[in-house]
Amino acid sequence: MEQNEVMVKMVLDRWNALNKNFDDTLNALSDADLQREIAPGRNRGIYLLGHMVAVHDDMLRLLDFGNKQYPDLYKPFVESADKAVADLPSAKELRKQWAEINVYLSSKINALTPAQWFEKHTAVNAEDFAKEPHRNKLNIMVTRCTHLAYHHGQIILLEAKKHND
Amino acid sequence: MEQNEVMVKMVLDRWNALNKNFDDTLNALSDADLQREIAPGRNRGIYLLGHMVAVHDDMLRLLDFGNKQYPDLYKPFVESADKAVADLPSAKELRKQWAEINVYLSSKINALTPAQWFEKHTAVNAEDFAKEPHRNKLNIMVTRCTHLAYHHGQIILLEAKKHND
Repeated sequence: MEQNEVMVKMVLDRWNALNKNFDDTLNALSDADLQREIAPGRNRGIYLLGHMVAVHDDMLRLLDFGNKQYPDLYKPFVESADKAVADLPSAKELRKQWAEINVYLSSKINALTPAQWFEKHTAVNAEDFAKEPHRNKLNIMVTRCTHLAYHHGQIILLEAKKHND
Repeated sequence: MEQNEVMVKMVLDRWNALNKNFDDTLNALSDADLQREIAPGRNRGIYLLGHMVAVHDDMLRLLDFGNKQYPDLYKPFVESADKAVADLPSAKELRKQWAEINVYLSSKINALTPAQWFEKHTAVNAEDFAKEPHRNKLNIMVTRCTHLAYHHGQIILLEAKKHND
């Protein structure tokens, strides 16, 4: 196994595991659970779910994988705070979009070669990338892994307490 | 810049940024804030702080950096749930240990060469590592980055709400 292949495997294994963890939590929550706040006065579960769909959708753009699938979610779930927008999609709709964006994103992710992961992402220009080669596509995955873990640590608070979270 | 050096920078930059984020939150919280639960019935801030010290201390062992500095923290903050152990260190003491373990860990982290990051960690044997080269020291950093982000997403709930967390 080439070293760049090892590095890609490390990051994509983490990405897949975190997505599975998030899915497991989501599947343990009812639509009514998602209407609750994760802590008093904080974001609701449904907002976090919409936020995750919108952020993962935006990865299509950053990774040069084509157009966003759900561009309408960016304003209410990334640019706006929870409860600032009255008319949000239903939990059922967001669950479907969450499943779909991750299948679509995975199909694109799995088609990249290890060398392509070390090419520049779309938010850096070629001149800056020549000086800062760490601003590559795999780095988008690294930062989105920690973003996913951060919000998983929050949405899991809506689950009935079973263990030491 | 060699490709392994690029990969190490990606992961260590993320590690340092996440530690700074956690520190910023910790510094915004009083010792009294740390006694509060992050959500009703959930872990208290002080438990999460002790948990982070114990997990980062355990990285010394996994990364072959020498003995743990605070072995007594593992049982109450990793093997036990919050409130299961009556006699915990004070917030003041844990804040000091958190600062110290991260300075100590950083000194060890910064001394490794890129090639050394791709050597095996101590929880895998040489035979398995030959077949699974992703089980290297840098992968410990990747998983501990997402662990840190997960709990940062929780402890930040103790802060006065300022923005869209």
